[in-house]
Amino acid sequence: MSEFPRTPLLDTVKTPHDLRKLKPADLRQLADELRAETISAVGHTGGHLGSGLGVVELTTAIHYVFNTPEDRLVWDVGHQCYPHKILTGRRDRIRTLRQGGGLSGFTKRSESEYDPFGAAHSSTSISAALGFAIANKLSGKPGRGIAVIGDGSMSAGMAYEAMNNAAAAGNRLVVILNDNDMSIAPPVGGLSAYLARLISSSEYLGLRSLAKRVTRKLSPRLTAAAGKAEEFARGMATGGTLFEELGFYYVGPIDGHNLEHLIPVLENVRDAKEGPVLVHVVTKKGKGYAPAEAAADKYHGVQKFDVITGAQAKAPPGPPAYQNVFADQLIKDAEKDPRICAITAAMPSGTGLDRFGKVYPDRTFDVGIAEQHAVTFAAGLAAQGMRPFCAIYSTFLQRAYDQVVHDVAIQNLPVRFAIDRAGLVGADGATHAGSFDVTYLATLPNFVIMAAADEAELVHMTHTAALYDDGPIAVRYPRGNGTGVELPAVPRQLEIGKGRIVREGKKVAILSLGTRLAEALKAADALEAKGLSTTVADLRFAKPLDEDLIRRLLTSHEVAVTVEEGAVGGMGAHVLTMASDQGLTDAGLKLRTMRLPDIFQDQDAPQKQYDEAGLNAEQIVDTVLKALRWNETTVEGEARA
Amino acid sequence: MSEFPRTPLLDTVKTPHDLRKLKPADLRQLADELRAETISAVGHTGGHLGSGLGVVELTTAIHYVFNTPEDRLVWDVGHQCYPHKILTGRRDRIRTLRQGGGLSGFTKRSESEYDPFGAAHSSTSISAALGFAIANKLSGKPGRGIAVIGDGSMSAGMAYEAMNNAAAAGNRLVVILNDNDMSIAPPVGGLSAYLARLISSSEYLGLRSLAKRVTRKLSPRLTAAAGKAEEFARGMATGGTLFEELGFYYVGPIDGHNLEHLIPVLENVRDAKEGPVLVHVVTKKGKGYAPAEAAADKYHGVQKFDVITGAQAKAPPGPPAYQNVFADQLIKDAEKDPRICAITAAMPSGTGLDRFGKVYPDRTFDVGIAEQHAVTFAAGLAAQGMRPFCAIYSTFLQRAYDQVVHDVAIQNLPVRFAIDRAGLVGADGATHAGSFDVTYLATLPNFVIMAAADEAELVHMTHTAALYDDGPIAVRYPRGNGTGVELPAVPRQLEIGKGRIVREGKKVAILSLGTRLAEALKAADALEAKGLSTTVADLRFAKPLDEDLIRRLLTSHEVAVTVEEGAVGGMGAHVLTMASDQGLTDAGLKLRTMRLPDIFQDQDAPQKQYDEAGLNAEQIVDTVLKALRWNETTVEGEARA
Repeated sequence: MSEFPRTPLLDTVKTPHDLRKLKPADLRQLADELRAETISAVGHTGGHLGSGLGVVELTTAIHYVFNTPEDRLVWDVGHQCYPHKILTGRRDRIRTLRQGGGLSGFTKRSESEYDPFGAAHSSTSISAALGFAIANKLSGKPGRGIAVIGDGSMSAGMAYEAMNNAAAAGNRLVVILNDNDMSIAPPVGGLSAYLARLISSSEYLGLRSLAKRVTRKLSPRLTAAAGKAEEFARGMATGGTLFEELGFYYVGPIDGHNLEHLIPVLENVRDAKEGPVLVHVVTKKGKGYAPAEAAADKYHGVQKFDVITGAQAKAPPGPPAYQNVFADQLIKDAEKDPRICAITAAMPSGTGLDRFGKVYPDRTFDVGIAEQHAVTFAAGLAAQGMRPFCAIYSTFLQRAYDQVVHDVAIQNLPVRFAIDRAGLVGADGATHAGSFDVTYLATLPNFVIMAAADEAELVHMTHTAALYDDGPIAVRYPRGNGTGVELPAVPRQLEIGKGRIVREGKKVAILSLGTRLAEALKAADALEAKGLSTTVADLRFAKPLDEDLIRRLLTSHEVAVTVEEGAVGGMGAHVLTMASDQGLTDAGLKLRTMRLPDIFQDQDAPQKQYDEAGLNAEQIVDTVLKALRWNETTVEGEARA
Repeated sequence: MSEFPRTPLLDTVKTPHDLRKLKPADLRQLADELRAETISAVGHTGGHLGSGLGVVELTTAIHYVFNTPEDRLVWDVGHQCYPHKILTGRRDRIRTLRQGGGLSGFTKRSESEYDPFGAAHSSTSISAALGFAIANKLSGKPGRGIAVIGDGSMSAGMAYEAMNNAAAAGNRLVVILNDNDMSIAPPVGGLSAYLARLISSSEYLGLRSLAKRVTRKLSPRLTAAAGKAEEFARGMATGGTLFEELGFYYVGPIDGHNLEHLIPVLENVRDAKEGPVLVHVVTKKGKGYAPAEAAADKYHGVQKFDVITGAQAKAPPGPPAYQNVFADQLIKDAEKDPRICAITAAMPSGTGLDRFGKVYPDRTFDVGIAEQHAVTFAAGLAAQGMRPFCAIYSTFLQRAYDQVVHDVAIQNLPVRFAIDRAGLVGADGATHAGSFDVTYLATLPNFVIMAAADEAELVHMTHTAALYDDGPIAVRYPRGNGTGVELPAVPRQLEIGKGRIVREGKKVAILSLGTRLAEALKAADALEAKGLSTTVADLRFAKPLDEDLIRRLLTSHEVAVTVEEGAVGGMGAHVLTMASDQGLTDAGLKLRTMRLPDIFQDQDAPQKQYDEAGLNAEQIVDTVLKALRWNETTVEGEARA
């Protein structure tokens, strides 16, 4: 555990109201203490560090200048909000970050009035802030909408959609572009190149000229007089025409660590009569903590670490991460099939495609935070004969649902989906859980959906997807490391729509899809110990279902239970539908479906999340016994009989 | 029926290969004949007219200059593709447009090699064309990707995402921006204003200077020498910096009806050594057909019409359209609750919000084709105390699925969804069908989902949504006109999660959700006629289910059938899940779920689509009888007994 830093000034600041009582000259010290406290807290808990350290001064300046919480501050993504939480009444709980019952690692409405909008997925902040601004405009309330959004988040279409609609908010909307070219993945795309040109071409302006320009730009009199020539002249000076063409007043670039620049510029923006304003702030990820600044990923997400040395607690050695098992198999398949290529939406290491990209740089595409484009781009590639794999987390694939339906499924194109982080995700909580993919994909015609029970299965399934040319196919697999099974020397091509019996029994059938297979097997052991002979099947496919296998299991066992790490409407619902279609329920069918509960589960340790979800072995056993109306007396009775 | 126009030149053109044999001087006549044939065909079939007429010259020029189908031409949305279909081997079937078994009203891969990518939802073309370009680059094949995209489609985020990734395609990608400020709805947003400035500020360039500029811009030698100053000088001259900042070479604006300009400019673009190129073409919707040019909507979508007079066949007088019933009730509720506001994504008349907007202009927001932003903007409004209604077609709500999950459902915000065009949609076919909304929404915690059985129910449900403050709520209703029931004088606030018995019986229970209620009642009549006493319930809510009612019906009737106009995983699956959770299947339960089939249904007359789907009264009767293993002999036996 890290020692607590000495923070005499920060100790006096419980909320931004206290902050605003400080003199400007004190803010540098406050920011330093805030940085030290952030480092200490994350050293204790692990979590996102680099991005928070990058906005320590910006956080301080915003709360100093703007009237939060009346001014509604929306942090895009939200993983940079730890300093914000410290300044807004949550310092006493900051060492519970990302833990069960503790503070969320993102902004969250239920935590604080200073979090007016929860976040975790990127690029929502401008839309939300615009909503706040317009709501206040309509109801005649004061208060701006302020969005703080990173340059990476700007690559998503919804940020552009919001900017395109921002003019109506006038000076009630402020967008602060936190431009950080040191993101974990190399920045991609035209916008990123554009921002780099902005910064390289215009030296940071001195305080006086910058403040003057802001005043001049936002003065109504001058603005009314400003003709097209001036607009372009401004553009030439500042390079901000892209944003100005979309209707913003562009201010910047500003050094985001220099409070003497930030404060007066934000004050001018606050007092502007015109808007919306986009303030371009340049920051450094990991700023002010040497080990973070020196690290390639700037300590984006870290384990607990020693504050003095920066040494992170090592994760215990274990089986390989699922994304790497996927990528390594894909590399092998791509060697044989030159049509295979791979697409990630700004998650090259998270999806394992950094490994694929090292071997096949020309066949690897990082499109930025742009899942919609990723999927339709893949559809275009597939329509022209390529065999693209879209590697996207389950929760982020929601961003591309229409493209999955309209461009892939309807056209029945051979796009392969590697759906990582399917199911519960532990410390990242509800916003990142991959709960709905089986439901929202299995309802689509033409789709084949697999779920891997372990890393060996993922090898087979990746290989199976690589060989499947008849239409879209998806494989889902969980966050984290494998179960430790041996990886197959030779991958197998699975028969589409065929499950497997893992353990043969007579009385109870457990039909598992994906990750809960190990728990199903544990449950089977426990049931056997009670004299209940148990079959365990791994269905492998959520669509098409192995109807022969399922019918056989349902009709030859006394009770059957489906188990899946997904929400209602998924595999269990499809099994029930099939059973009902075939009249299997007519004469009586003891069938129960176990699935994720109908709530959004907060962050917690994975095992606790599964317990809350009711998907552990003990709960499977309970469900079986209840369905059998079995109790200890019954068995004793049976045993005596 | 319209007379066939005289088209001597067009008669010689079966495919673009024939077109390319013509002399440039002949193209004007060909375009005129193509326009006449388009008008004649749509006069015969009805369909989209204005947008096709706007691109007659552009279609001619593209196929003349580029090497289709090797050059892969992707029409965004695709409703402007009728002239394209006429030129690409489908003229003999052009009078079957949008009819059962006929040509699709959009591009479709299965129809022609000249349709490399199907479309119908907007803004997919750049992503797809980029996929074609990159696939050819990877495999060393010739052939460009050419996207033709309207200015309206450019407001969607995915177009921006694609542009942001376009640089990698180099000169293999051409984007033709078809700028048509005469769209059905007033253009909205910063981009639209920007395009208007482009056109108004720069006169159309003369042919010679335009061609020279294209050559100069795309010459590698000059481009390499071009510094920042030149870039901005170009920007100042042409105003195209927004696209250039994203990495495109911008060319334009060009008069899209002047073939003498279009052809040489496109030839230069075709031969360019650098890219990607964005060609800004200005066209007029409805061009060349006086009645269309004179109409407010430029004959965007029309009934059959008389070519000479332009008079459209009148739709038979009938009950009000669902969207207007919705809007009229919302207007009433908004009078009492000033927090109510309404959001449409470029569909003001299609959603009825044009009516709402006339009464409450300040509380109506048309965000352009930007469903993602629409939903998160609504979430922001709701978080600040407003009560927004998002009126979005079922199929387009897919575009905002992640925003529905992440920004609305997880935060449990009172955003109300008016889901129009739910279920089958007739002539628009599979791409526009609203098949999946119940499945993808009912799997989400916190959601309330209603489905209107008729327009009176829609009144009650709109009112119920207007009064519901506890979280997200959705009401789905179909395309077209109501059933003709009397509208209630006073709307009722429905009890959340409570269905209703419409007809009481004893042996058979039909559990209907939404639109098929009339067929369920017809089926009940037929069953009664066979001596099978039948209950019909309208569940009203897909979530939460009326568990008490359902349990009572399932346990007190011999057979039960659910009927819904939605895909698998929806209401029927939830009823089955509930039944199984409660052990109702244990002792035997004759329950069947009727739903949309697991295929994408092509366009057809609505009744035929329902027949294909198996959701008409006769098919309900069949399902009941089969579940009862009933045949005429059985009944005769019973009758004799």
